[in-house]
Formats: sequence, structure tokens, C-alpha cells
Amino acid sequence: MGHKARTDSNFNLNDLPGTGGRMDILCRCVNSALFLSHDLRRDVVIYLVLLGEPGSSKIVKFDGESVRYLNPDERSSGSLIKKALEKSAGSYWKQSTLGVWIRTGGLEDILRELMDGAENKRMFYLSEDGIDIREIDKKPLLDDVVFVLGDHLGMTPEEESVIKDAGSKIINIGPVSLHADHCIILVNNELDRNIKRDA
Amino acid sequence: MGHKARTDSNFNLNDLPGTGGRMDILCRCVNSALFLSHDLRRDVVIYLVLLGEPGSSKIVKFDGESVRYLNPDERSSGSLIKKALEKSAGSYWKQSTLGVWIRTGGLEDILRELMDGAENKRMFYLSEDGIDIREIDKKPLLDDVVFVLGDHLGMTPEEESVIKDAGSKIINIGPVSLHADHCIILVNNELDRNIKRDA
Repeated sequence: MGHKARTDSNFNLNDLPGTGGRMDILCRCVNSALFLSHDLRRDVVIYLVLLGEPGSSKIVKFDGESVRYLNPDERSSGSLIKKALEKSAGSYWKQSTLGVWIRTGGLEDILRELMDGAENKRMFYLSEDGIDIREIDKKPLLDDVVFVLGDHLGMTPEEESVIKDAGSKIINIGPVSLHADHCIILVNNELDRNIKRDA
Repeated sequence: MGHKARTDSNFNLNDLPGTGGRMDILCRCVNSALFLSHDLRRDVVIYLVLLGEPGSSKIVKFDGESVRYLNPDERSSGSLIKKALEKSAGSYWKQSTLGVWIRTGGLEDILRELMDGAENKRMFYLSEDGIDIREIDKKPLLDDVVFVLGDHLGMTPEEESVIKDAGSKIINIGPVSLHADHCIILVNNELDRNIKRDA
């Protein structure tokens, strides 16, 4: 979630935090979600919910299986987000560059899309007052699983209601509160330890 | 370790990967080492060993207790590294901005400085063939502890000899090979789980 993240392409890659409404946070989240050493996580998709100026919220999707032109630095993901925001977005997905997609919509829309018809799919919301990720039942992790994370502003009570109503469990990643991109690293590591890749 | 990282200030903050010799990797390592949500890790120090063009290796130190003007984005740490490299470095530490220091030297110099006279200090080298960090004896983590990490090029056999001779244990952070900055997140999380902060 990028509560202040710019919803048009009118930001400067030389100043992602300022002109982009802390777009740097979302750029680092893309890196954390998708990069392995000398490879990408082909089985991960990350959705960025942009809620900042000038309004009309947008969702940008990076699909690890098909994404191209993505390097690990913030400017690289920032530039792909900017290209996505240059498209005139509608309520259905449009591809802006290979593996990067955009649509209009907010948290509720994307959670509905992700959870509809997926009976076995589990959703986890990362929050300080959750259960330690190391202590949760690991079986659901073998299936597709959704993790929801806030940004530096956390979630509003309204957003927390939406997340709870969508059937999420609350988990945390340890005793210290961390940035969203750091939490994603810890979630991916827990998944790595519980899933056989290439099996 | 930044095997290609520029050793003078002649790089462009708009192109840290290219002109900086993958300086973006080191910038992300600074972020991973030092940032908590809305705070800094005051008890962490990170040393960047720069080995790239135009030569004469340098070490840049960020001290979590005293560092100022540091924001989480790559450009922010990149700009402080650049300022450090503008100083004429000698074989002793010089402060360039608050909490950021520079000296000439390489891996052997900094390991000697860190390990000299510290009998109880433990050093860990992160490598795929190490013991899982979750399995190691946690007692040494209560004392000061040093972690050594490579970059996208790994370590040379000569560097591995230096690290081994300095008395390191080899550990890894899980079943999948990750970027250095991602490994630092996992190491910090393991420390968070085994040390009482503010106790």
C-alpha cells in the first residue's frame, strides 16, 4: 500500500521519495518481492496500491514470471511504475511493459480479485499484533498465498476492516517493527524454508 | 564488499549501478543494516569495502549511533558515500558527514581492526555452504559480532582465505541464494529474535 504514492506519472526518478509520494518504498518492495541472487522469483506477483495525488487510485502489478527490463535498483522499478502510470488505466488490467500491468482500483478491488473463488487460498496481514510467522501452520504456504502489507503510514481502521473481512490472519515477522520491503524479505525467506522450489 | 564500487566521487547519483560500479548494492546494504520502522539501529555499524576504479581501495563506515542526514532511499546513502569519497582519505578514519567515515584500506585491514584484541568477538562469513543461521549457537550473538558479506561477484579465493584466517565461521541464511542486502535483513532479524533490545 502506498498511501501517498503518486497516481499519475508526474514524478521525477531523481526524487522518488519527494515527488513520487514515497514511491521509493514501493520500488524497494518490488525488489524485495522479486529478486534472487542472479535470478527472479518466477512464482511471485506483487501488487502496488497507489493512493496518493492527484487521486483516482491505481494498482500496478509486477509478475515475476513475465517481467522484463527490471533491475534491482529503485530507479529501475520506479521507471517501470512511471511507464505504467503513463497508460490511461481502466477497471481491467492493461500491460504497460512486459510483465507490468495497471488498472484503476483500490485495496478492496484487489483483495476481491485475489481471493474470489480460491477456497484454499490463505491471506495474511502483517501487523505488530499478529502471530509470529515462524509459529503459523505451514501447510497453507504450499498453496497460493497472499500477504498484505502497509507502508510507513500503516493501515487506516477502514483498510484494516476490509482486510479482516476478506478473511485474513494476522501475522508478524519478529519482535521489532520493520519497513515493508524488509518484511517481504522475511516472508520470502520463510516461504523458501517451507516450500521445495523446482520440485 | 563492492568489488567494482567506484573509489572516487566521480559517479552520478542518477546512475548508481552504471557509473558507481554497482554502488546501488552497497546503498541498499546501508539501508538494510541501519533502518527500523521510524528509527535507526543505533547498535549497528556497517563497513563498505570499495575495490573498483580508479583504484586504491577505500572503506566507508556508517555508524548507526551517530549517522545523520540518512534516508532509506538509495540516492540518500549514495550521496553520503559520494561525500565521503570527496575527502582525501588516509590510513586512519576521517569523518565526512555526521556518522559517516572514510579511510584507505581493504578487507584485511578492516577485519584486523575489527577483530584485534576482541577475544570474545565472533565473526561470521555468509556463504551458501555454511551452517543455517537458525541452527548456530546463539550465545555469541549477545556480544559484539561481525558479519562479512560479498556482492554480486561473491568473494575471490584470496578474500576467502583472508576471511577464514581471521577466524570466521561460515553460515547461510536459508536454502536460496540472495542479494547481500537481503541477507542483512535476515541476519538482523535473527539478532532481533535473540537479543533483548533496550534491556
